Amino acid sequence: MSANDEMSLSRRRFLHLVGVIGGSTAAYQAALGLGALPTVALAQPPDIAPLPKGIRKSVLILGACIAGLVSAYELTRRGYDVQVLEASERVGGRVWTVRGGDVIDEVGHRQVCNFDREPHLYFNAGASRIPGEHLALLGYWRELNVELEPFVNLNRDAWVQDDALFGGKRLRNREYVNETRSFVAELGTKSIKPEMLDEQLTAADYKAVLEYLRQFGRLDINLKAARSKRTTSAGFAGPDAMKQLFNSRILSGMAYGESEDQQPVMLVPVGGMDKIVDAFMKKIGKYVQIGARVETLNLTEKGVRVVYRRKGREQESLADFCINSIPMQLLAGIDHNFPNEYAAGLTAVPRGKYFKLAFQAKERFWEREGIYGGISWTMQDISQMWYPSNGIHKQKGVILGAYTFAGAAGDKFAALSPDQRAALAKQQGEKLHPGYSNFVEHGVSVAWHRINHMLGCAAAWNESLRAQWFDRLQSPAGHHYLVGDQMSHLPSWQEGAVQSAFHAIADIDQRVREANT
Amino acid sequence: MSANDEMSLSRRRFLHLVGVIGGSTAAYQAALGLGALPTVALAQPPDIAPLPKGIRKSVLILGACIAGLVSAYELTRRGYDVQVLEASERVGGRVWTVRGGDVIDEVGHRQVCNFDREPHLYFNAGASRIPGEHLALLGYWRELNVELEPFVNLNRDAWVQDDALFGGKRLRNREYVNETRSFVAELGTKSIKPEMLDEQLTAADYKAVLEYLRQFGRLDINLKAARSKRTTSAGFAGPDAMKQLFNSRILSGMAYGESEDQQPVMLVPVGGMDKIVDAFMKKIGKYVQIGARVETLNLTEKGVRVVYRRKGREQESLADFCINSIPMQLLAGIDHNFPNEYAAGLTAVPRGKYFKLAFQAKERFWEREGIYGGISWTMQDISQMWYPSNGIHKQKGVILGAYTFAGAAGDKFAALSPDQRAALAKQQGEKLHPGYSNFVEHGVSVAWHRINHMLGCAAAWNESLRAQWFDRLQSPAGHHYLVGDQMSHLPSWQEGAVQSAFHAIADIDQRVREANT
Repeated sequence: MSANDEMSLSRRRFLHLVGVIGGSTAAYQAALGLGALPTVALAQPPDIAPLPKGIRKSVLILGACIAGLVSAYELTRRGYDVQVLEASERVGGRVWTVRGGDVIDEVGHRQVCNFDREPHLYFNAGASRIPGEHLALLGYWRELNVELEPFVNLNRDAWVQDDALFGGKRLRNREYVNETRSFVAELGTKSIKPEMLDEQLTAADYKAVLEYLRQFGRLDINLKAARSKRTTSAGFAGPDAMKQLFNSRILSGMAYGESEDQQPVMLVPVGGMDKIVDAFMKKIGKYVQIGARVETLNLTEKGVRVVYRRKGREQESLADFCINSIPMQLLAGIDHNFPNEYAAGLTAVPRGKYFKLAFQAKERFWEREGIYGGISWTMQDISQMWYPSNGIHKQKGVILGAYTFAGAAGDKFAALSPDQRAALAKQQGEKLHPGYSNFVEHGVSVAWHRINHMLGCAAAWNESLRAQWFDRLQSPAGHHYLVGDQMSHLPSWQEGAVQSAFHAIADIDQRVREANT
Repeated sequence: MSANDEMSLSRRRFLHLVGVIGGSTAAYQAALGLGALPTVALAQPPDIAPLPKGIRKSVLILGACIAGLVSAYELTRRGYDVQVLEASERVGGRVWTVRGGDVIDEVGHRQVCNFDREPHLYFNAGASRIPGEHLALLGYWRELNVELEPFVNLNRDAWVQDDALFGGKRLRNREYVNETRSFVAELGTKSIKPEMLDEQLTAADYKAVLEYLRQFGRLDINLKAARSKRTTSAGFAGPDAMKQLFNSRILSGMAYGESEDQQPVMLVPVGGMDKIVDAFMKKIGKYVQIGARVETLNLTEKGVRVVYRRKGREQESLADFCINSIPMQLLAGIDHNFPNEYAAGLTAVPRGKYFKLAFQAKERFWEREGIYGGISWTMQDISQMWYPSNGIHKQKGVILGAYTFAGAAGDKFAALSPDQRAALAKQQGEKLHPGYSNFVEHGVSVAWHRINHMLGCAAAWNESLRAQWFDRLQSPAGHHYLVGDQMSHLPSWQEGAVQSAFHAIADIDQRVREANT
């Protein structure tokens, strides 16, 4: 997936209304037609009453990720019997906070994190920020009393860097954004004429448009850009500077932080994203078994039958329903009896090859450059560098030294050993921060498509795949429900996982009640 | 000062380079010519060695505000004798955090704050956010080990409201911004032609500009806005919606959060802005006397002579130098012997009439609407509503219910009693949050132009005043130095106060050394 694909996907990701997020593709398309209307409606769990007395229903939940944990939490509260099987040795799925001493269970690249053990030194290897309008998810943070703080996503003082731009010299995001805006605004004021406005708009409205452009581009009162008089910090000026700025691939919206799901506000838990997992586990941990690997999954007439292996022993679980967050491409490889048209969908959607690498920084060198949190962008393989929003002015910090979402860079990093990855990230980081290599240590990395029991990151839906497969896969196969962010309109976001769980449990509960009336 | 004035002032405020901020107007104008180049250079205190043995020099510091505290801190470390006189009963100047039990000493409107006494329930009545590029100030936060966290300044999920827009219905900042952007971008793609580009730019560059507009305006691949097909949440559509959006005075850049000194990142202290004052006071509190009111200030041949009244007693202080942050318009009324051309400048610059009002909210109703920090904008007198960046998901919070910078609204609120102010703010807040009045209580307010020993907010410099007066007033009158944000290129920012102190102490130290060589 190229950076451009990523951006247009982001646009699509956003274009849903909460009311339809768990719903059908048809409803989703309707929302698309409406466009980016206000994003926030109250997103509550399905309004489900406790099971009537005397009725017992069991739900087998596969995967102790956010979708699985939410399902277990909501169902047990309503009297359902649940069992949660998790294949790996940890819970949380792609909500994973790595701290000093933790093991990274990547195929062939097992690593131990050597960060100092201080509360602010951790690495959110998967989910790492929560948009303020993800209210279903945020409702759990409130309810379970898990502390949040603002996450700095956009920082105009961070750097952008492209070897094809200004000889590869870094420049401030602020400069990049302000210069291009002023150029476009000046062009706009020259070219937009009153007669181009819709007929109901008047000369006064035209003036308002010019005033908009003036403010947007920081033009002077004569609608001229100060820009044209000056030299950029990298020493380029005038048309040549503009030529380079506009032709840089960084321009593809990335440096702007303005795609809808990246706009402020974003939030982050105090102390690591897995605090929410801990909070769920306190409530429903007793139903969860880790290291339980599903070998067979059969739909039966009345429910599901699952055979799994745990501590070397094969065990069987029978349940009335199954809520399943196993990554679809892995599920396809398990012995199952899904209908063919359902099974075919499991391998239809490719998975992202996201790669993240974190360093412990011996000192917070970025703060001395006036960078407090946020993201620098580069066209090199590392793609992004994230500075921590927390621990401001402490001695050390954990810096994200690479975050790639393009498949090629993901493959490149994945093929390297952990040490080689760290070396490459250091080398490329030097272009953003000269001397970088000397400041960072203890690199740890996660190539999601190589993590055991995962072997892929977010499901990479596109419009045609969604049209072909989404409704079918979201609908149950017998008593079996696919969930997870993979089965939502918000792949890669926890909110998608929560909404997928809401959809499944609402449907299950409705079936249970209909069967009992 | 109208909202528009405020915006253009903001632009000017930003257009300085750190290297010249404490310097002359000429240097400042040179920086202006360069435009908005990268903002951050290392901003360190002047490189001053300790006073040589045997040399004693005294500096009388008037005002225990940030400029005074920084001056005292830097000078005492270098062996200077300092005395700090503060007229009011508290230190900090316009760095002022109001908590439950605190008194607001406003002329005629003495108030006691009735907030609950919890760490997250406070009201920064003056300075309330720190841009990440204000490195001179931030250096002290680091050095004095005062904890900072991100401040949410811009929130696309917050509201904008204008009685002249959509019948006064609130709409999300996100919708406002995205709709207007898409409209302008579509116009731009229609009207900007390749031949309008500078000659060095080619057809490929033209495509890059179109792509920029496409991404900026979220246009589809045919460069059409989805906008035109849809209805805004307030029920208006098409040209009429655009007409209203563009003609709303809110358009004046305010809702965009994109003026340079408002761009991310901004920071805020954990627990109140006055934590930095506390930290300075720990270091140099022993030199500070509060309740010490200057009555006479005379320049003498070798220094200054000040008569002040404290606890009913008149006292005299003689010093080699004086660093003075008394608001200029108040200083003008003190018995002094300044040269006429210097004294004339003291009353030349008008002061802002900023007004702030805070409520304690019984519950954090805004979070249930997906608003986590940031600012809603309205064209009503209250102008802004600020939601706290901290205490997320707690029961209560302190909300800024009014923040006016237009003189008319400032005068209007100032003329009302505290109860009347709260009533007006509640009434106007209803348009942003229906039911608002029921959620908020214990309103407290600060009209800076009525606060004792202050009687004005930031100095309202404009270009002609600056050309006429700034260099003269920044230069010493004998051994007397004016400081404070009033005497900087960043009025209303603490960074300006710090830089003014740097300028004064560097000049004093140079004179001392020259006299001793």
